[in-house]
Amino acid sequence: MPDGDKRVLSRPRRNQPTHATFEMSKQITISLDAMGGDAGPDVVLAGAAIALERRPELRFVLFGDEARVRPVLDRHPALAAASRFVHAEVVVRMDDKPSQALRAGRWKSSMWKSIEAVKAGEAQVCVSAGNTGALMAMAKFCLRTMAGIERPAIAAIWPTLTGESIVLDVGATIGADAQQLIDFAVMGAAMARAVFGAERPRVGLLNVGVEEIKGNEEVKMAGRLLKEADLAELDYTGFVEGDDIGRGVVDVVVTEGFAGNIALKTAEGTARQFARYLRDGMNRSWLNRIGFAIARSAFDRLKQKMDPRKVNGGVFLGLNGIVIKSHGGADAEGFASAVSLAYDMAVADLTARIVAGLAHYHHAGGTPPVADPRGES
Amino acid sequence: MPDGDKRVLSRPRRNQPTHATFEMSKQITISLDAMGGDAGPDVVLAGAAIALERRPELRFVLFGDEARVRPVLDRHPALAAASRFVHAEVVVRMDDKPSQALRAGRWKSSMWKSIEAVKAGEAQVCVSAGNTGALMAMAKFCLRTMAGIERPAIAAIWPTLTGESIVLDVGATIGADAQQLIDFAVMGAAMARAVFGAERPRVGLLNVGVEEIKGNEEVKMAGRLLKEADLAELDYTGFVEGDDIGRGVVDVVVTEGFAGNIALKTAEGTARQFARYLRDGMNRSWLNRIGFAIARSAFDRLKQKMDPRKVNGGVFLGLNGIVIKSHGGADAEGFASAVSLAYDMAVADLTARIVAGLAHYHHAGGTPPVADPRGES
Repeated sequence: MPDGDKRVLSRPRRNQPTHATFEMSKQITISLDAMGGDAGPDVVLAGAAIALERRPELRFVLFGDEARVRPVLDRHPALAAASRFVHAEVVVRMDDKPSQALRAGRWKSSMWKSIEAVKAGEAQVCVSAGNTGALMAMAKFCLRTMAGIERPAIAAIWPTLTGESIVLDVGATIGADAQQLIDFAVMGAAMARAVFGAERPRVGLLNVGVEEIKGNEEVKMAGRLLKEADLAELDYTGFVEGDDIGRGVVDVVVTEGFAGNIALKTAEGTARQFARYLRDGMNRSWLNRIGFAIARSAFDRLKQKMDPRKVNGGVFLGLNGIVIKSHGGADAEGFASAVSLAYDMAVADLTARIVAGLAHYHHAGGTPPVADPRGES
Repeated sequence: MPDGDKRVLSRPRRNQPTHATFEMSKQITISLDAMGGDAGPDVVLAGAAIALERRPELRFVLFGDEARVRPVLDRHPALAAASRFVHAEVVVRMDDKPSQALRAGRWKSSMWKSIEAVKAGEAQVCVSAGNTGALMAMAKFCLRTMAGIERPAIAAIWPTLTGESIVLDVGATIGADAQQLIDFAVMGAAMARAVFGAERPRVGLLNVGVEEIKGNEEVKMAGRLLKEADLAELDYTGFVEGDDIGRGVVDVVVTEGFAGNIALKTAEGTARQFARYLRDGMNRSWLNRIGFAIARSAFDRLKQKMDPRKVNGGVFLGLNGIVIKSHGGADAEGFASAVSLAYDMAVADLTARIVAGLAHYHHAGGTPPVADPRGES
């Protein structure tokens, strides 16, 4: 990374602060699908305004229905001043099937146009809270997969006991062969370097046991290949189990999309369950309420640690450009987190890092990817 | 179930109390692998003694190394009076591979003998805290799979916001085809009737989305077949996602063993993470400690709700006899839970219920199972 004015990124590295640096003058433009999410422009623009307050150097291109976006934008003058607005006549609905969305929304929807802005180089990253299937279908169609990558992945940032980890794939595609798992490992490691500033991120393969004989054939083969390749960019530490994710034993957890999606949602469900028990306990008596009020700082801290809004944003990796999916039900604070994540990705030039990582792997003698008809759907 | 003296089972049904009844005179004998688990006889016998206090009608057959078990048994006279002890010269270690365990421990280990007691009809259920792989290998070898079942499953009881649910398979085998998923559904429903007293348990298939187009082929086909079969014994409600498990939207969650194992361990990890944040918060200041002390009843309740000891016990289903795996690291209270679960299973005659459920399914025109080479390993 070139020298110059430096700032410390806000996202903490696992266990220790990040010292990734960037030029202060670097202009980051993020394209936003203003119509995405359950609440549409209200939340998207309010979230962008919060992100802009925190990073005044940000610039936006906003795509959406002018009649709906303009009045909201008028309420956020600072955001309006830092943004360019582009009308889009079609809105992809939250329940549109990917094929429907592509048919009706290609070229002209706010979702498509915000992705296209990345392809055209007008923006470095796109953020949408629209429906995941449609967003992935459009992103694949518009940006195409990187050379050598058969399948994109969705990477999630997972809060752990020691900081944060990256888990991928959490649901871009179902199933992955050994080569695809290795691609995920390389892409996840590039993202860990970008987000956590980890020089040689520790990478684990999610499995049902840590012994080498455990798991399905693809996971076992990926493990053998990663061990043999001994890559400079990542430290492959072996298999990890479901409870190792929250423990934070590695920086990157690699899995295929079916198990990854179930793991992510199960963790969300368990956290919600825990929070609900706690709330119910608090409301059971006045004494409990008083106790909770006194220990309030502890609960605020817990809430902050487990706050899904803080880690909002699934990052689509493996395409020629970065697209971030914000949770459809996120509030303004949650959407602001997704924008901050987008900013970190752009500053770190994640796409270039992934390309370099993949080139190194293949240069190091990694198996060249084989065309797989399952990859194109 | 025959009439006679009736008692209400202690395990609560989801949302409402169970009214499953049984004859008071029914004698339940449980065979115990006294050498299993990290702590061996100390924990196993102490756990059995706790379970006996709660259900004085219980009888045990204990298998283990006499030199190690006798002194411990002498400390539990009530348990000694309710038990028959059988010496076993071989002990399966926690890190033995299944093949090793079978070679060294078949016929003569405490683990094998405790399973064999079920086959011989001396005990209705076997409980072991020994290593899962060895226990499953021995149970398959000794008891064999039920007619029409290719693969056994491990079922876990999962605490939910509305009570408890059954999740299977949590790791007996990797992968499952549509027919095997349906077998799991039928077996899980039989267990739900036995444990929760649910007349027509609600069954969901774990998937990455609730729409019919989502998921892999096997899950989609299993969903179609279950819908068409419209079984009397279970109410198939469709797909469920990871966060639906803790919400308790169904009584039985069906999945293949890889995703199921990862879901279970991820939930355990997340619960542990939450508990740790809370403990850290409490210890951050004196004020917090005071607050926590005042609201203590709320935390005790939370601890009880999330206590892994209360739901200790993976139930092996699909074999000609029930084997329950207690967590290797369980304490006496945890082992007592596994024994209580074994008791419930025996009282409800789970094996017979599963056989009946499978017969009904096949009678109802369900696809007869096809021999699958992957099933035998």
